[in-house]
Amino acid sequence: MIAPASLDLGQAMYELMAELYPICRSITGDGLRQTLSIIQKNIPLAIHEVPTGTPVFDWTVPKEWNIHDAYVKNSHGERVIDFHKSNLHVVNYSVPVRARMGVKALKEHLHTLPDYPDWIPYRTSYYKESWGFCLSHREWLELKDGEYEVCIDSTLDDGNLSYGECYLKGRREDEVLISCHACHPSLCNDNLSGIALAVFLAKHLAGVSLEYSYRFLFIPGTIGAITWLARNRESVSKIKHGLVLANLGDPGRLTYKKSRRGNAEIDSAVMHVLKHSEQDYEVIDFVPYGYDERQYCSPGFNLPVGCLSRTPWGRFPEYHTSADNLDLVRPAALADSLAKCSMIVNLLENNGKYINQNPYCEPQLGKRGLYHAQGGKTEVKDGELAMFWLLNLSDGTHSLLDIAERAGLHFDRVEEVSQTLVEHGLLKACA
Amino acid sequence: MIAPASLDLGQAMYELMAELYPICRSITGDGLRQTLSIIQKNIPLAIHEVPTGTPVFDWTVPKEWNIHDAYVKNSHGERVIDFHKSNLHVVNYSVPVRARMGVKALKEHLHTLPDYPDWIPYRTSYYKESWGFCLSHREWLELKDGEYEVCIDSTLDDGNLSYGECYLKGRREDEVLISCHACHPSLCNDNLSGIALAVFLAKHLAGVSLEYSYRFLFIPGTIGAITWLARNRESVSKIKHGLVLANLGDPGRLTYKKSRRGNAEIDSAVMHVLKHSEQDYEVIDFVPYGYDERQYCSPGFNLPVGCLSRTPWGRFPEYHTSADNLDLVRPAALADSLAKCSMIVNLLENNGKYINQNPYCEPQLGKRGLYHAQGGKTEVKDGELAMFWLLNLSDGTHSLLDIAERAGLHFDRVEEVSQTLVEHGLLKACA
Amino acid sequence: MIAPASLDLGQAMYELMAELYPICRSITGDGLRQTLSIIQKNIPLAIHEVPTGTPVFDWTVPKEWNIHDAYVKNSHGERVIDFHKSNLHVVNYSVPVRARMGVKALKEHLHTLPDYPDWIPYRTSYYKESWGFCLSHREWLELKDGEYEVCIDSTLDDGNLSYGECYLKGRREDEVLISCHACHPSLCNDNLSGIALAVFLAKHLAGVSLEYSYRFLFIPGTIGAITWLARNRESVSKIKHGLVLANLGDPGRLTYKKSRRGNAEIDSAVMHVLKHSEQDYEVIDFVPYGYDERQYCSPGFNLPVGCLSRTPWGRFPEYHTSADNLDLVRPAALADSLAKCSMIVNLLENNGKYINQNPYCEPQLGKRGLYHAQGGKTEVKDGELAMFWLLNLSDGTHSLLDIAERAGLHFDRVEEVSQTLVEHGLLKACA
Repeated sequence: MIAPASLDLGQAMYELMAELYPICRSITGDGLRQTLSIIQKNIPLAIHEVPTGTPVFDWTVPKEWNIHDAYVKNSHGERVIDFHKSNLHVVNYSVPVRARMGVKALKEHLHTLPDYPDWIPYRTSYYKESWGFCLSHREWLELKDGEYEVCIDSTLDDGNLSYGECYLKGRREDEVLISCHACHPSLCNDNLSGIALAVFLAKHLAGVSLEYSYRFLFIPGTIGAITWLARNRESVSKIKHGLVLANLGDPGRLTYKKSRRGNAEIDSAVMHVLKHSEQDYEVIDFVPYGYDERQYCSPGFNLPVGCLSRTPWGRFPEYHTSADNLDLVRPAALADSLAKCSMIVNLLENNGKYINQNPYCEPQLGKRGLYHAQGGKTEVKDGELAMFWLLNLSDGTHSLLDIAERAGLHFDRVEEVSQTLVEHGLLKACA
Repeated sequence: MIAPASLDLGQAMYELMAELYPICRSITGDGLRQTLSIIQKNIPLAIHEVPTGTPVFDWTVPKEWNIHDAYVKNSHGERVIDFHKSNLHVVNYSVPVRARMGVKALKEHLHTLPDYPDWIPYRTSYYKESWGFCLSHREWLELKDGEYEVCIDSTLDDGNLSYGECYLKGRREDEVLISCHACHPSLCNDNLSGIALAVFLAKHLAGVSLEYSYRFLFIPGTIGAITWLARNRESVSKIKHGLVLANLGDPGRLTYKKSRRGNAEIDSAVMHVLKHSEQDYEVIDFVPYGYDERQYCSPGFNLPVGCLSRTPWGRFPEYHTSADNLDLVRPAALADSLAKCSMIVNLLENNGKYINQNPYCEPQLGKRGLYHAQGGKTEVKDGELAMFWLLNLSDGTHSLLDIAERAGLHFDRVEEVSQTLVEHGLLKACA
Repeated sequence: MIAPASLDLGQAMYELMAELYPICRSITGDGLRQTLSIIQKNIPLAIHEVPTGTPVFDWTVPKEWNIHDAYVKNSHGERVIDFHKSNLHVVNYSVPVRARMGVKALKEHLHTLPDYPDWIPYRTSYYKESWGFCLSHREWLELKDGEYEVCIDSTLDDGNLSYGECYLKGRREDEVLISCHACHPSLCNDNLSGIALAVFLAKHLAGVSLEYSYRFLFIPGTIGAITWLARNRESVSKIKHGLVLANLGDPGRLTYKKSRRGNAEIDSAVMHVLKHSEQDYEVIDFVPYGYDERQYCSPGFNLPVGCLSRTPWGRFPEYHTSADNLDLVRPAALADSLAKCSMIVNLLENNGKYINQNPYCEPQLGKRGLYHAQGGKTEVKDGELAMFWLLNLSDGTHSLLDIAERAGLHFDRVEEVSQTLVEHGLLKACA
């Protein structure tokens, strides 16, 4: 399996993001449905609808929210805030409103970012019925006294929570979970980049022979993960490794947040790939805050799921503002993120354990043509060293990754050499 | 429970030390008895008397020593060394002597500190019958030739070894042991500061509702601890945590010497309090030398008992000299030591384990009013983070202290938030 | 047991190396036999002969190689390469050749070191039938066009593989293995220094009372270790500790390569000796490459065998060249290496576990004359501290080395004090 790292793929991911960008998504509703439907054009996707009111652990699936228009008009009938210019202008999940009010009353429903006067903030009010508008601080300063007409043409009714699931069957029932949230409106790095990565990773894996089965989730944050876990509680034990993908399009270095376990195979696998990337990177310990790893790593599940990002949430100023737009993300960064995801998957796919079939002393490699014939020289070749490490540590307790780490060699080199040794009958895969 | 840290308490401890300072204590005798009787005026104290000759493990309770007067007179009949000026002048446990001798013979029984010519050293000879005087090197240099009259009006007879025990009953039979030696004559930091701390900590705990039972020991060093352990051998398994207190009145930084186990809860508790104190401090590994932790941590007992000091024994020049007097110790240092002891006790009292009652995914905190309603902002509050950590790690294996350490938060914050979660039925204390 | 470190011993080892230096050794043949016979004059040695064709695990004992003469003559009949000047001139295990050829054809069989133009390289071709000559690059440059007469008067026939074994019986069946290879021709640091060390360590141990039994192996590298392991497969479990000795005569610092286990007693013992040597040293982790520890530490055996060197193989430029001669090694370095080996053996011999016979509190050392009578002073003596550590940690789980490491004291000090405590009935050796 070769990692797809070409800039063409980065460009294609970028174009998918551009297509999804204008849609007003939320944790329920038609924007989310439309998003899933575009994803479905790219990969096989089952779309699930879960009715409002369904109990999911300590939570309940909320009412479905849809919005058609929203604005604030001044006394001249001019739209001073217009949902059609940016869907961030409306506080996500705002209840319907039609009213007239003075500037003072209006301002109690307005949100701005004084530190970034040109940017519109992104705000939500999912679980408390409320309404509001977001706007740039510059626009806010220009609001004059007088009466304003306020309209939010939204609905908040019984309906469904939608999510998408792409399942790729491998030789094993054991699963790798790839999860991304799909509930943010016009925001790019968080979260369209995660969606684009997951789609293209699934596209790539759909075309190759797989050891593990792969499950890709495109879900609304928090409530979506909780809903999926509630509906699949009995089968989550199949998940052997998992990654939450988010913020993967900015030009910053890669950041891996470990699973709650901290020493799961996914943790070692990601860290190995990052360490051997010859690029700067950061690894952070698990914290019970962030994206949906919070739910996957809740103590009742404690799944081996980490989170891969470039610059993590909250650490770039554009986060949750209108400046997290198509200018913030780069095809090259997307391509690099995808290459790393592919390497991680490749490592998981091939990280077997083997048994040395000649555990007493070294086997004679020379008679098999595996070792140079002339003795006395000082240098040892990488590949020969990999052979010796594989033979020495393949006692059924060390995976190829364990051996690569112990030997200080790249997994790919060790894996390649392991196949040579298997072909010569010197190693045998553990059952 | 609020830590009592006021300077008033520091002053009160200082005054108790000033009251105890003039008494000539030893490992047995009336000075020790008089000391216990003053302690008894402050806290409920059972005073035990153990007869000379009682076997205690490998040791035997020694004869009781008492002293009324001691001096060396020169040929003019002037007292050149006078016990009534300082009880350090007599080697502690000196046998009775009445003799006349020349300066040369006399000097074989004299001890001085040439490096500190104004200070009188403190010397003992508990287990070998002997006699001697200690004096400043300056006085020693002035001793002229001629005959001297030597008198030590002491008794060394069958009697008793005395010690005091203050037991405060809590809800549990499990005990916290607080031990200090009470056998040094006019020396302040070592050991009157430890006595003062123990007395005021007991006073404080006597007034509050307690989870653990507390046992305070005021005992002669080594032989007292051995005697107490020999008489209580069957019940020491009740001791779950313990501290030896000594040298707690000087202005140096706090020093904690770990228990033999090195990873006992008392070790973590003290280190957490010191780490969050925003003061300089030191932690040292267990060494089988020092104070009575030597006995509590002997391999047959291996109790989880550490030792808390400010500047440890032997590391300040005044140690075991007449300069370890009321000028060396400070009310503010005593108050700070007491505050830390109270925090340690508070931590032990509240360091429970809890079970998350909604272990599958996060519970919905918002509907309980425990979480902000508006989403999208970047900052997370300390208290919200504490909630998430508590919910994530309360799987019955992590104590509140474990969670506080893992989260990098102060124990008090985590403990406070745990109570909120208990009130909302989200956490339940482990049985 | 006192470590023999005198320079006289260094000189004697050097002289043994000088006696062995001219012999043309290989992995089989008369040079090896002659070497074993010289060793036999120094220590009791059983010499074993294993016939060609004997299967040994994945290998087969090869044909026996012997050589009488070899040369290359120019058209004037002058020997431009002459085996009698240096046995390195012939590629070890070269098949017999008698031929005439031009310079171009000849050069395909010549090996030089362009970076070190005055040195002859050492090359072998044990397992592939081939022939060749090694010479200095300077000589190679002087080879003129014209016809050359090539002669290698060697035999490669059925015969035997020889090795020597010196067994010193101790009180226990448990064994310490000391192994060195004995197959290199005129090379000093690698490997005559290892032979000299093993011979003199055996000589020393033959004269003292031993706890362990000691087995010294003088074997051809790789095939010798494999042959010995194949013939002794059932009894290797007796080996409790082992060292491979090589490169011990150069003036560099000592280097210890750990066993595959990494935390075996031999690892701790060697590291303790090196740490307390007040000399620079290096410890490296196990790597499945190097000397015969590769075979002893193969996963089927996983014996606790490390490798002791001064400058390790491949890290000095003279390695495997004619410059690894009698000038490279020093009597003082050999003496120091032997002293360290003796200290390591001494530590293993005495590294018992003891049980404190008074585990409840400290025993009263003073009444046994083991402790100073006068109290109050600050300093503690090393020996007294060693007593307290021994009493505190002798609970049957800590060896003397564990205690020495924990106490930061030299093993010899702790061991000496342990004997005093045994004599006083305070410690008892574990069965």
